[in-house]
Amino acid sequence: MDEFQCIEKFFKKNGFPVNSLLSNRFFVGVGDDASVFRLDKNFPIVVTTDMLAEGVHFSSEIDPFSLGKKVLAVNLSDLAAMGACPLGFTLGLGLNTLNPSWLLAFSRGLFEVSRKYKCELLGGDTIKHKSNYNFFSVTAIGYIEGERALRRNGMKLGDDIWVSGDLGEPITALQLQKESKKLIQPLPKVDLGLKIREFATSSIDLSDGLSSDLRHLILASFSGNSDKIFVELYFEEMLKCLSQNMLNWFAGKKDNLDLVMLALQSGDEYELCFSAPVDARTKIREIGKNLNLPLTLIGSVRKRSSEKNFNFVNNRNDGLLWLKSLTNTFDNIFVEKSGYVHF
Amino acid sequence: MDEFQCIEKFFKKNGFPVNSLLSNRFFVGVGDDASVFRLDKNFPIVVTTDMLAEGVHFSSEIDPFSLGKKVLAVNLSDLAAMGACPLGFTLGLGLNTLNPSWLLAFSRGLFEVSRKYKCELLGGDTIKHKSNYNFFSVTAIGYIEGERALRRNGMKLGDDIWVSGDLGEPITALQLQKESKKLIQPLPKVDLGLKIREFATSSIDLSDGLSSDLRHLILASFSGNSDKIFVELYFEEMLKCLSQNMLNWFAGKKDNLDLVMLALQSGDEYELCFSAPVDARTKIREIGKNLNLPLTLIGSVRKRSSEKNFNFVNNRNDGLLWLKSLTNTFDNIFVEKSGYVHF
Repeated sequence: MDEFQCIEKFFKKNGFPVNSLLSNRFFVGVGDDASVFRLDKNFPIVVTTDMLAEGVHFSSEIDPFSLGKKVLAVNLSDLAAMGACPLGFTLGLGLNTLNPSWLLAFSRGLFEVSRKYKCELLGGDTIKHKSNYNFFSVTAIGYIEGERALRRNGMKLGDDIWVSGDLGEPITALQLQKESKKLIQPLPKVDLGLKIREFATSSIDLSDGLSSDLRHLILASFSGNSDKIFVELYFEEMLKCLSQNMLNWFAGKKDNLDLVMLALQSGDEYELCFSAPVDARTKIREIGKNLNLPLTLIGSVRKRSSEKNFNFVNNRNDGLLWLKSLTNTFDNIFVEKSGYVHF
Repeated sequence: MDEFQCIEKFFKKNGFPVNSLLSNRFFVGVGDDASVFRLDKNFPIVVTTDMLAEGVHFSSEIDPFSLGKKVLAVNLSDLAAMGACPLGFTLGLGLNTLNPSWLLAFSRGLFEVSRKYKCELLGGDTIKHKSNYNFFSVTAIGYIEGERALRRNGMKLGDDIWVSGDLGEPITALQLQKESKKLIQPLPKVDLGLKIREFATSSIDLSDGLSSDLRHLILASFSGNSDKIFVELYFEEMLKCLSQNMLNWFAGKKDNLDLVMLALQSGDEYELCFSAPVDARTKIREIGKNLNLPLTLIGSVRKRSSEKNFNFVNNRNDGLLWLKSLTNTFDNIFVEKSGYVHF
């Protein structure tokens, strides 16, 4: 089998595109030098690229069906964080061999996610490389149904901090070598992104870990003035976010504070963390109910004072993120950066 | 240096985008979960992805400045083949280390091509991988200033076959280990694509080699009926396309027929091969003159008869591509597929 037979057999579809915004006479999909589409309305367009390397972003043990789902899902998660509606994607495959049964399972997983989120395969590139580790590059394209994208940089003093779903399963599964559906088949929170787009002040998807990703929101929102504010996370609310699997797997072996600290470092969650004004609380709880998705108010953006804890700000401690016990079980605790470190 | 410092230092720019179609209040560039733009007019949008792996698509010896130029140029070449105007791109970097001096030179090369073709860096992803070989993935986005993209599938019986520039330098440089500017810093034929968009019947950029890429045009245009036609290439016109460096490097060592056969297999040319009606000849020669770019009429699309040569059609010989001597120096010669084989 050569590259072209591979595309023809596993990635070229005939018939209508899955996204009706693309179904017009301009549509050119897989099989030309590039793909062509035109939107019926002149929406703002959103573009994101995520790469995944074997042994880094996924284990060599992952089954190809799950991998096909994951490479697209992690990109849809970025569209979700922008409040964008999926439109299409290009797929870059860096493989050391073309194995038909592997490709069949991979493409089935890929198209399952493609159909679910109406995100059309537009084209791509398949290359043979010299490494033992495969790699994938997906560029997803979406659009904003309105005037305003959900950015990282709009967080305001006094805003609430929210997180979707539960936290901690991926990092626990990696540490204890447990099987985790969330780790191999993450669910992008596309519907949530669409629902909160108009009123949330900032948003990010959790790929590196909450402690790291939330810092991106703070630094993007208060660039130059981040020494004036901090985010207080509520320990007792964070407890409610811990994944049931994490609690079961660690039962009796870690105390609650350790579990929360670990969940704060857990990457590959693909949940959304967002900030919103206090007066949006009722609306947000309603959205969570309608989507059948837990949304937890885990903290708030506070003004930094000269309280004792801030005296310890140093290289290890940027003073941006603190864990507070609402029941005074412990004094405020600084949350370290860590999270997934790329290099 | 971590991933974020790398992006901040080498890839994030401040100020206006280089493409004025993007300079409006919707523009979000590098540094968020995704980039956002809106086009002032509702043009059809064109998307293409090309991956490059070290040791396969470029030598480990290549300097980072040239590599930065090449990763974007090969994608612009796909936009050129579609008759599209460049708009922006996302950049995927798969690196085993973040070396500041390497990144500086790479980003300088990249932005030189970005500015020249007004193709804005929109975002991307930087990952560390476990392989010894670096890899890159670029997705370029363009638009069609009109109603019609230049496809692979419109070639008609009787059309002329044209090729831009010269052929043969890359394959010769690889065989004889010579230095070739074309191999490391290819020039995408964006202006040519824009000029021929409205009247050319099909077009492709030469990445695998003319004998292979031209077959893609034939098969896309005459799917199911490709046994009714063939493309006749004119030996004496092909001679005019041979690169001067190829002629010098091989002087006295190969005869003209060998050189033409080799040039037909030469990948990494990033010239355009296109078909056009006979009555467009004057217009095409004028375009070449204006762009200061040689355009050579190398063949035509002919009806297949039961002439002797076609009796030999077999696995090795699909009968699609023949070399004819206009001066009867030799009988018609079948041109084999080969070209660059990916797997």
